[in-house]
Amino acid sequence: MSSRIALDAFGTDDRPTPEIGAAIQAAIAGLTIDLVGDRGVLEPALAEALAARDDRDRAEEAVGANLAIVHASEEIGMAESPARAVRNKPDASLCVAAARVKSGQACAAVSAGNSGATVAAGLFRLGRIRGVDRPVIVTGFPRVRGTGARTLLLDSGATVECRPINLVQFAALGAEVARVEHGVDRPRVAVLSNGVETGKGTALTRESARLLDAHPSERFEFVGSVEPGELFGDVCDVAVTDGWTGNVVLKVAEGAMAAWQTLLREALRGREASAALGRSLAPALAAVRDRVDPDAHGGAPLIGVDGTLIICHGASTSRAIFNALLMARDSARRGLTTALAESVAAHTELFEAARRASTKSTGK
Amino acid sequence: MSSRIALDAFGTDDRPTPEIGAAIQAAIAGLTIDLVGDRGVLEPALAEALAARDDRDRAEEAVGANLAIVHASEEIGMAESPARAVRNKPDASLCVAAARVKSGQACAAVSAGNSGATVAAGLFRLGRIRGVDRPVIVTGFPRVRGTGARTLLLDSGATVECRPINLVQFAALGAEVARVEHGVDRPRVAVLSNGVETGKGTALTRESARLLDAHPSERFEFVGSVEPGELFGDVCDVAVTDGWTGNVVLKVAEGAMAAWQTLLREALRGREASAALGRSLAPALAAVRDRVDPDAHGGAPLIGVDGTLIICHGASTSRAIFNALLMARDSARRGLTTALAESVAAHTELFEAARRASTKSTGK
Repeated sequence: MSSRIALDAFGTDDRPTPEIGAAIQAAIAGLTIDLVGDRGVLEPALAEALAARDDRDRAEEAVGANLAIVHASEEIGMAESPARAVRNKPDASLCVAAARVKSGQACAAVSAGNSGATVAAGLFRLGRIRGVDRPVIVTGFPRVRGTGARTLLLDSGATVECRPINLVQFAALGAEVARVEHGVDRPRVAVLSNGVETGKGTALTRESARLLDAHPSERFEFVGSVEPGELFGDVCDVAVTDGWTGNVVLKVAEGAMAAWQTLLREALRGREASAALGRSLAPALAAVRDRVDPDAHGGAPLIGVDGTLIICHGASTSRAIFNALLMARDSARRGLTTALAESVAAHTELFEAARRASTKSTGK
Repeated sequence: MSSRIALDAFGTDDRPTPEIGAAIQAAIAGLTIDLVGDRGVLEPALAEALAARDDRDRAEEAVGANLAIVHASEEIGMAESPARAVRNKPDASLCVAAARVKSGQACAAVSAGNSGATVAAGLFRLGRIRGVDRPVIVTGFPRVRGTGARTLLLDSGATVECRPINLVQFAALGAEVARVEHGVDRPRVAVLSNGVETGKGTALTRESARLLDAHPSERFEFVGSVEPGELFGDVCDVAVTDGWTGNVVLKVAEGAMAAWQTLLREALRGREASAALGRSLAPALAAVRDRVDPDAHGGAPLIGVDGTLIICHGASTSRAIFNALLMARDSARRGLTTALAESVAAHTELFEAARRASTKSTGK
């Protein structure tokens, strides 16, 4: 398999500047990158970015050896209908990047564009792993207790409305990510709910929990329900929910943490010695941000599709994209997609039971 | 109308200690309180709490004048099925407290018990305001920009699965809370969604937004969608969502803010001069907590029922319960329930359109 990574150069809000910066950095680090997008824009922009660098000679040499521009004539905007855009624009940078994974010319693709379109590109260009019903986005939450590992949340936004079969599959897939990517031997998996008492949650969470409880897995331990606030604790390694709820959780968590920091800054402003205090505080705040900040952890893998595809924020910096490229390389090297396919095959009985239950109950 | 407030003495995890502390404080502040629960437990506990106070004489005098114990022989546990418990235990402290509002012996009730049971007590003991389909819990989010007011989130957990008629009613009811309780002249109301682009959100959020857009209100301004992270901004005064999502939002926000603080404390621990820094930081952290902490704002009103009912956390302190008692008194004085009924009557056309739409689409 190729070790090249296809990077959609027209994803971020400031495209293609952060993408070019990340691609240069990756080339210097020895990754081989296909920078996918309009050659007429990318060639001069790349030359300009290289010329502005302190390490120009080294960067030019690395780019010469490790970076290729792959032309794609179109791009997909944030406001476009994701499925329609992916269908109608085969030559969009995102679609070309995904196609290179499909053809084996690249081992992974990274995009910071319209995340709905990236999910559609995964579905239509890469296809699903056999036996997987819906793709799913994985994000990680920092923990304040226990090990340094992160609690994985699936789905963080790929499949907005879900049935029990989807959550049950997210459980098996998420556990495999925890095992392969984070070295967790027997991951603890929970269903996100708003309480552990009988009757809490929704028809979807209750039925999914019942199925996971009734069909124990050899590859993970089902530990029941987890409350939203416990995502920051050490209660489970993987929490599963529908893509609507997961996306809301992700965005509230980011908003709340940013709000807390702003409130603290405001509270300090009115106090004596606040300048000195602020200076002493800065490194601690930076350390917290580093644990919390999604940029430090690259992107969010879209899994369940037949190939490695990493989704980044539209507001991603060069550093975030660079980290996503490292993540893409590592996932491909570790054979995550193959491991996921094995896990799907190992859970046939669970999935069949969940499919029967999902036909009966279509409630969320 | 009576100005007495019925306080369920057996709600918190440490019942009845925080309730008794709050009731004494309220009596001293001139509120008139019915402390509802098992007299055999409450009488000695109240005497003991009074005896332990520095201001014993003043407290005893205030309690003698302003506090009565109202006997209720049963209590409702956290693990009980809410609807069944409320139906089968008419003499539970929660049910007796709600019944006193219904009969006019009290102007409001406060409980920190099983919140599902409190919703059921509101529904079955107080009944709904005419024209309201489902009750709804209101919580407030601190803002980092704009005015000091809070962004109200409805529903925060009363009605787990919703149809468009529910969200549309939450919009009208929430706007009335913003007007009556927070003095916002023409509240900005938004539907919580995971993006403003076409196709984002769920069938429920899209249909609710369409209805609110098609039927402008004289009492509030519909401003479209709000993303979860923007609850901490100054984008809207009221955000509406289903009770599942709202409850998750509330719990993630609390968890994320608590996690941030813990991470900061950890980051400071390893640093030089951290003791001194910690001391200087303490008042700023306290100021932030005061803006964020639900205890500082009392409880969350359950609205849409025919009477004032305030729900507190099971982990509430005496201070939180005391603040909820103040909130209950103020809501009753301001005539919130009457204002809500007027708002419902003023939105007949909107609600009828939403009811027709909800019969067609039952999606979330």
